[in-house]
Amino acid sequence: MIPPDPDYVVRVQTSFGRQQAMALLGAQMTEVRPGVTEIVLPFREELTQQHGFVHAGIITAIADSACGYAALSLMPPGVGVLTIEFKVNLLNPAAGERFIARGQVVKPGRTIMVCTGEVVAQRADSTQQTVALMQATMMVVRDRPTVSD
Amino acid sequence: MIPPDPDYVVRVQTSFGRQQAMALLGAQMTEVRPGVTEIVLPFREELTQQHGFVHAGIITAIADSACGYAALSLMPPGVGVLTIEFKVNLLNPAAGERFIARGQVVKPGRTIMVCTGEVVAQRADSTQQTVALMQATMMVVRDRPTVSD
Amino acid sequence: MIPPDPDYVVRVQTSFGRQQAMALLGAQMTEVRPGVTEIVLPFREELTQQHGFVHAGIITAIADSACGYAALSLMPPGVGVLTIEFKVNLLNPAAGERFIARGQVVKPGRTIMVCTGEVVAQRADSTQQTVALMQATMMVVRDRPTVSD
Amino acid sequence: MIPPDPDYVVRVQTSFGRQQAMALLGAQMTEVRPGVTEIVLPFREELTQQHGFVHAGIITAIADSACGYAALSLMPPGVGVLTIEFKVNLLNPAAGERFIARGQVVKPGRTIMVCTGEVVAQRADSTQQTVALMQATMMVVRDRPTVSD
Repeated sequence: MIPPDPDYVVRVQTSFGRQQAMALLGAQMTEVRPGVTEIVLPFREELTQQHGFVHAGIITAIADSACGYAALSLMPPGVGVLTIEFKVNLLNPAAGERFIARGQVVKPGRTIMVCTGEVVAQRADSTQQTVALMQATMMVVRDRPTVSD
Repeated sequence: MIPPDPDYVVRVQTSFGRQQAMALLGAQMTEVRPGVTEIVLPFREELTQQHGFVHAGIITAIADSACGYAALSLMPPGVGVLTIEFKVNLLNPAAGERFIARGQVVKPGRTIMVCTGEVVAQRADSTQQTVALMQATMMVVRDRPTVSD
Repeated sequence: MIPPDPDYVVRVQTSFGRQQAMALLGAQMTEVRPGVTEIVLPFREELTQQHGFVHAGIITAIADSACGYAALSLMPPGVGVLTIEFKVNLLNPAAGERFIARGQVVKPGRTIMVCTGEVVAQRADSTQQTVALMQATMMVVRDRPTVSD
Repeated sequence: MIPPDPDYVVRVQTSFGRQQAMALLGAQMTEVRPGVTEIVLPFREELTQQHGFVHAGIITAIADSACGYAALSLMPPGVGVLTIEFKVNLLNPAAGERFIARGQVVKPGRTIMVCTGEVVAQRADSTQQTVALMQATMMVVRDRPTVSD
């Protein structure tokens, strides 16, 4: 997949920087490649549910952003991407020092982009475990200035 | 559906109070009935994605908590509920003054609980619109003290 | 929801009649209303999986057709609908004398239609039970003659 | 993943042979490995929807069986597997000479097995294309003789 925008990395990172929710969670974008992105979220107690694991919605948030920006990396400037829907399986409790969400485009389309995502937990003992698997559908939005980039 | 625990409201609300992620987002549980809960999240800019709407993962977080606690309301004390998976359709941009997530159990089982959730946006002009629809699967966890309640 | 095509019932039923898979299964369309359809499938042993229940894929097939035609009922002539994705929860074993799939549009959009479906089993003793719940996303296809109606 | 049953291939194939729905569709199991199976379905007009592509429910049926038997291959004798839910993205029209469904276990658990599946279409010109992507959740069923194997 070849991005039509040579400046896709900057455009994706700039857009990610506007996601205030990612700042609230403490997530950072660590990689942008054509059709692929990676987001890292360090563990914080403020992110947990009642058992002390990171909340499934928070894990979903970084997976969704990773998938959405994987799709956006393949768009020309001024074209936006909206999440239509996703499905997430939570494979293991989200325990760990940090969480790495990877999103990738598996089917680029003119109107619909299908992406898969996974979130891996890195433990203090250097082991890691997949905690979530996402399958997501994105819609390409053209000519709507409020939903560009 | 009749909760086996007469104190289910307190038990659910206490558990919700331990979800630090809900406090971080600013969400509050506003209703607990047998197999049904409601969570309210006021809009804040810190919750938004790049277009100014509330992030899909945040919307998912309150829908997941609403569904999970709908399931927990039907459990006896000491029994926990874990989200196995969910699917969310995002029907409209999450714009509004506040967001109300409603979760309900549609199929209570001994091991598996199936729930549906929806998130409704309330606008400044008093109109409202459904922004998300969830279909979720929860697992009942017995005899595992770290995942109780 | 008001169908733009006054002849939507005939158009939907004609298209359903072209679904050879429905004939193979023995399914019939029994109702078409604006944004809603119903398909009935009598039990046959040829439809079963290894435990004697109707195969989940077969149950999905009638739910998908019911949802797709619910969407098509709201389209003008010559415009087609394609299933992008669906998620199905199987709530109870698909045992019964016949199975009734109901599909309905919950969010009609210009490009994307979101539908929900359910399949109910009717038992010999006149009881009935929901066996499947679907949440589906359809894409509206214009100006593509091979995918019309 | 090491199957606890050394005769898992025969047990899986025997169970698949009891799925009358697979015979009705004309599907055959062509491979069984630990945590992985493959099912092949030749194109027939009887399997199509209104545009001449194989019906999404039929594509789902072979993907579901492939995933279910991938899970069953890892079970001891007498233990059954039930599909709780799945989500399917339909990436391309199901056109081709034959369709190959591959299912694999991505997270084996004591009670819950998570599987992914894909269906690839083989065209007359020897090209192939992924037509569907499944993410599925299976439940392990012990001590219930009517749902064994």
